[in-house]
Amino acid sequence: MNSTPSKLEKHVSLSLPAWFDAEEMRFEFSPGDLDGAMRLAIALSRANVTHQTGGPFGALVVQLETGRVISAAVNCVEAQNCSSAHAEIMALSLAQQTLKTWNLSAKHQDVDLTLITSCEPCAMCWGAIPWSGVKKVVCGATKDDAEAAGFDEGARPATWIKDLNDRGIDVLTGVLREQAAKVLKDYAESGQTIYNP
Amino acid sequence: MNSTPSKLEKHVSLSLPAWFDAEEMRFEFSPGDLDGAMRLAIALSRANVTHQTGGPFGALVVQLETGRVISAAVNCVEAQNCSSAHAEIMALSLAQQTLKTWNLSAKHQDVDLTLITSCEPCAMCWGAIPWSGVKKVVCGATKDDAEAAGFDEGARPATWIKDLNDRGIDVLTGVLREQAAKVLKDYAESGQTIYNP
Repeated sequence: MNSTPSKLEKHVSLSLPAWFDAEEMRFEFSPGDLDGAMRLAIALSRANVTHQTGGPFGALVVQLETGRVISAAVNCVEAQNCSSAHAEIMALSLAQQTLKTWNLSAKHQDVDLTLITSCEPCAMCWGAIPWSGVKKVVCGATKDDAEAAGFDEGARPATWIKDLNDRGIDVLTGVLREQAAKVLKDYAESGQTIYNP
Repeated sequence: MNSTPSKLEKHVSLSLPAWFDAEEMRFEFSPGDLDGAMRLAIALSRANVTHQTGGPFGALVVQLETGRVISAAVNCVEAQNCSSAHAEIMALSLAQQTLKTWNLSAKHQDVDLTLITSCEPCAMCWGAIPWSGVKKVVCGATKDDAEAAGFDEGARPATWIKDLNDRGIDVLTGVLREQAAKVLKDYAESGQTIYNP
């Protein structure tokens, strides 16, 4: 521990759980079906708990109008040894690397992309959204739901929705809130880790 | 663009620029030498510009007391197609994957780890710091310097230092500020991309 290793790590590698390949996970929703897209995010959050692969959070990047799913993700913090690997950051990063652009708005000015997340973003994910190029954020459970289950959303400002709106990003929260919040509640009651440094 | 691809991407891959291997980059500072650690972060920010591999930002995770460098990174947003690949997120993620823990405090309660960054964190990186387990953040250039050069720090709250302090994280800013700010200024004057979605 007293000297710098001769070679520093140069590569960050973040993988979704293996169960993503399983046939039963079908990432499909009908064009324009906001609730359908949220059901996918909630299903992901529940699946991550069922498979014991991480925290109860799921997110996707989609084209709402067409029903196209660009990326789907879950919280990978513990499994991937990376505190930034929240579901939202994973979904945004996967979408960007799939479309080979750091800016999800640049190549999709015809159809804007939307971040669907089973729970409102924490302070970090809130700060990440404006850099990503998504034009809309749709959330299931709220900060209150997350905190009631023992999770920490960080010092996200009370003005978080207006801050995103001011940057041209629409925010919708509480979509299928009860179903989304139930996954958090069930996780907390199961006694699984709620990590905090 | 109208249908979901049969296989969604499952893996996020983020690599530092190839010049990190070059012999001239020596990631060393003397035990306890805060300015020396900051000089490394500033050198990284400048090298990223010189090599035209990304934005003028560098960061490291170090043990200040021992002079050990755990990770060193630069902004990789454009090169890696990932809007979250800011220098701070890269440095934190590399440190966590090097030490095989998402929590940089858990395995190092004997010696706390510090994030050294050539510029104050944006809203996203500020939100990421409490999840990482670092116990101290040392910044070079300030938000004013970044904004004067045309960069956007996001809607980071004015209370950002107190918010971190409240979570047991020390913050020191303006360390070698002039040298750090000069890299931003030179970058802006060079006419290179200042990206924003």
